[in-house]
Amino acid sequence: MTETTTPRLRPPAPAGLSEQARQFLDAETPFTSHEPPDDPLDTEGWLRYVEAANEALLQVLSERLPTALPELERERRTINGVPTFVLRPGHVPDEADTPLFLDIHGGALVLGGGEACAVTATGAALMRKAITWAVDYRMPPLHPYPAALNDCLAVYRAALKERPPERIVVSGGSAGGNLAAALLLRARDEGLPMPAVLVLLTPEVDLTESGDSFRTNLGIDHQLGSLIEVNRLYADGHDLSHPYLSPLFAELAGLPPTYLQTGTRDLFLSNTVRMHRKLRAAGVEAELHVGEAMPHGGFGGNTPEDLELAAELHGFIERHL
Amino acid sequence: MTETTTPRLRPPAPAGLSEQARQFLDAETPFTSHEPPDDPLDTEGWLRYVEAANEALLQVLSERLPTALPELERERRTINGVPTFVLRPGHVPDEADTPLFLDIHGGALVLGGGEACAVTATGAALMRKAITWAVDYRMPPLHPYPAALNDCLAVYRAALKERPPERIVVSGGSAGGNLAAALLLRARDEGLPMPAVLVLLTPEVDLTESGDSFRTNLGIDHQLGSLIEVNRLYADGHDLSHPYLSPLFAELAGLPPTYLQTGTRDLFLSNTVRMHRKLRAAGVEAELHVGEAMPHGGFGGNTPEDLELAAELHGFIERHL
Repeated sequence: MTETTTPRLRPPAPAGLSEQARQFLDAETPFTSHEPPDDPLDTEGWLRYVEAANEALLQVLSERLPTALPELERERRTINGVPTFVLRPGHVPDEADTPLFLDIHGGALVLGGGEACAVTATGAALMRKAITWAVDYRMPPLHPYPAALNDCLAVYRAALKERPPERIVVSGGSAGGNLAAALLLRARDEGLPMPAVLVLLTPEVDLTESGDSFRTNLGIDHQLGSLIEVNRLYADGHDLSHPYLSPLFAELAGLPPTYLQTGTRDLFLSNTVRMHRKLRAAGVEAELHVGEAMPHGGFGGNTPEDLELAAELHGFIERHL
Repeated sequence: MTETTTPRLRPPAPAGLSEQARQFLDAETPFTSHEPPDDPLDTEGWLRYVEAANEALLQVLSERLPTALPELERERRTINGVPTFVLRPGHVPDEADTPLFLDIHGGALVLGGGEACAVTATGAALMRKAITWAVDYRMPPLHPYPAALNDCLAVYRAALKERPPERIVVSGGSAGGNLAAALLLRARDEGLPMPAVLVLLTPEVDLTESGDSFRTNLGIDHQLGSLIEVNRLYADGHDLSHPYLSPLFAELAGLPPTYLQTGTRDLFLSNTVRMHRKLRAAGVEAELHVGEAMPHGGFGGNTPEDLELAAELHGFIERHL
């Protein structure tokens, strides 16, 4: 359009937010200093980028954990050939009907592996009356699509041997939301049963980035910019709009009850609301929750706004397990 | 924040929308040529503005109606002293348990009265298996707060004499959402029973305009800019943040199941998602639906996207009546 308005400033945090959320929103993002290489074939450069960005990520994630960690059993186990962190809070019994969460980490499909995977999962695992399996799936530059998806599916198959499907939750945020949705599409297509619940937190369900918020929230969301170059690295020549790469474009009938969460400043706002509408149109029970002024990934996890949404998610899962 | 980015252009409609929705989004809004007077005391100027803007509004609304109107009984009746349009589609029986919709029109609390009220309600009434009462409430400049709210309450009291509350739906869009919510707060506070459902379509629940989308979506939503001057005219010296003027700031416990709808480009996106969160936090059953790239008020009412959301609303009401 030719209509020009005021320059696209990121406005200050609105006054209605908590003090903590406002501080988070008005701060600079910690990841801006690491830039991926321009050349997708520069494998060494990508590996250096991943290492440096992961270190910064791990630092941020570690700071978000409670200083006095409650008792948590943590084990790195190889499940169906895939390295997985198994996490169990001290108060959760290790019994045959204890719910099992498959937790698929975010990180733009290149970051968040290894120790970052375990630390991401720890915060969530501590809030659950469940055992968490955090899948440390393979990623580019060494392992592009479909390695990550194959790993998630292998671990889901193992979960189905440990629990009836109605005691399993599959959960993913950001890139993990891409894999969580794609995993269930593949599981459905291969005749596997669906879990009780699918959780999609600001999910990267469209690697083509065709949603409106990729433009309207660019610069407004200070956590995230376009990931299209990384998406191409992940896709490794496959069509970005293939349903297993962009689950938004899949036939979604048959997916389990789904909880979706995003924020008004989220670069993935359109991803999330479009997925919600498509799930509803396919007859899937799907619930949408949107945080005011919330950027991609929330306000750091510990603000009243984050915790209120975590309670909402907890309630949704309780109603469906 | 000091961060500057690209100029705030309204981006072209995303390709994922229907052709009709994209045409609506890329067109200019029809209301830009009418500007309210600067002086709130210029009553004659306001009356001239209201007349001219209403004429333009009526034109647009009339064009949105089906060319071959299905049979519809329409009567202008004075209910408890308040002029009200009573609308009944030909296929809907006039029986004691036929659901009754209280329809509260939008128009920034100054527009949309008279014939525009009837025409707005006609489109919705035709989609309902119900009788619609469209309240032609009084407005500024001659009748500021609390005239409109008093009118709505008077009609709601009359509705409670015609139907058990569980056969009544209260529905409002934009400014009508303000009045619909405020009406139920007053009804609750005065000990009246709640209806089966409250419908809030992109509701103006915060006359102080404190939500983030009043800045982030300014210029992105081509249907609406700040209404703060009109809000002051309506408030007539009352505090804009009083719960009966800005229901977002009310204690919301006790409200009935509520359907909320907005769009990612909506200037009232924050109004809607904040109201949803506050309703949920107050223990009210509330469901949120967000249209991709949808501006304030939708894409004109007849696009696949509008109709899909209308079906969603219909389903919500059916489940609760």
